[in-house]
Amino acid sequence: MKSITKYLTFHTEKKFKLVNITSDVQKIVFESKVTEGICLVNSMHITSSVFINDNESGLHQDFETWLENLAPHSPINQYLHNDTGEDNADAHLKRQIMGRETVVAITNGKLDFGPWEQIFYGEFDGCRNKKVLIKVIGE
Amino acid sequence: MKSITKYLTFHTEKKFKLVNITSDVQKIVFESKVTEGICLVNSMHITSSVFINDNESGLHQDFETWLENLAPHSPINQYLHNDTGEDNADAHLKRQIMGRETVVAITNGKLDFGPWEQIFYGEFDGCRNKKVLIKVIGE
Amino acid sequence: MKSITKYLTFHTEKKFKLVNITSDVQKIVFESKVTEGICLVNSMHITSSVFINDNESGLHQDFETWLENLAPHSPINQYLHNDTGEDNADAHLKRQIMGRETVVAITNGKLDFGPWEQIFYGEFDGCRNKKVLIKVIGE
Repeated sequence: MKSITKYLTFHTEKKFKLVNITSDVQKIVFESKVTEGICLVNSMHITSSVFINDNESGLHQDFETWLENLAPHSPINQYLHNDTGEDNADAHLKRQIMGRETVVAITNGKLDFGPWEQIFYGEFDGCRNKKVLIKVIGE
Repeated sequence: MKSITKYLTFHTEKKFKLVNITSDVQKIVFESKVTEGICLVNSMHITSSVFINDNESGLHQDFETWLENLAPHSPINQYLHNDTGEDNADAHLKRQIMGRETVVAITNGKLDFGPWEQIFYGEFDGCRNKKVLIKVIGE
Repeated sequence: MKSITKYLTFHTEKKFKLVNITSDVQKIVFESKVTEGICLVNSMHITSSVFINDNESGLHQDFETWLENLAPHSPINQYLHNDTGEDNADAHLKRQIMGRETVVAITNGKLDFGPWEQIFYGEFDGCRNKKVLIKVIGE
């Protein structure tokens, strides 16, 4: 079994930001020389997500509006978590809807994707360094 | 390490449809001859899901009602994504709640399931061909 | 390839309960002697979840309030599933938001976690025995 583990660091300028990381992940898959296996991609933080969806800017704004509606940031004092001095309880909730991780099949040395699948880092409490882990295992 | 990769194609007659694919996946696990490992099952499209829940028709209708409430299809112009000419922004959102993929343990050559676990393909924008990927790795 | 499969049983005193299972999972990873690989942790039941988030009691109460708002338990007759004699349709829905499983990287023999990541069993229909599966594969 071969394996490779890599970490990407993100520091977004805004609290909410979706970043397309597909080509970063694909490069790591090539580097691993794994031709048959799987690739795990996960946020290492609990106020952000890794997920697969569409690379379309209108949809990304729809995600922001929709998540803000399902788990509003304000008023901050609606969440007990924010009594600890944080103001990011909403980001912990948003991340549950969008997910922590994705597992992608590697077939013939490539991410085995449908026509529109792209991997995103979803930041819901940005403006600081946060990391994503990529682990490839296989042969 | 052994591996096998298969694809299933679905073309539902309705926009919303949940399809039980457990026996299809179990057949592929048998075919793989993997006795200890994991099985990844994922939608290859970004307006549908693969998830594990109950094979109960009332609950399936509850899922439809609930998802329609959390991410309504209409009015179509409430979503920026639909300005591209699509009308399926809601399906991109519904899929985030229900998830893209599941990873199932294979123990003694079988899907290692609790008493009620069944695997479903969840279609939220159907009436066209869409694919599911199944990848088994292990020994 | 090495692998190990273990099961944990939970019987919560309340219908809703979040249980930190990080140290249980870490022990199984040590026992497996896998130094590079992955660890799958999943609920074997369809009214509970395994997920990764923060070990902060205020946030856990926020999760309960938030999930109850998105998928209310009462009135019971709002769900067709409950016509079968069950009263747990809401738990089937809550579990979709929180997820069935997590896949965690193992690097140098340890769960490869960010600073705050902790694994939780999320019970939404408790007061009875339910199981979690842990499967480690790797080398």
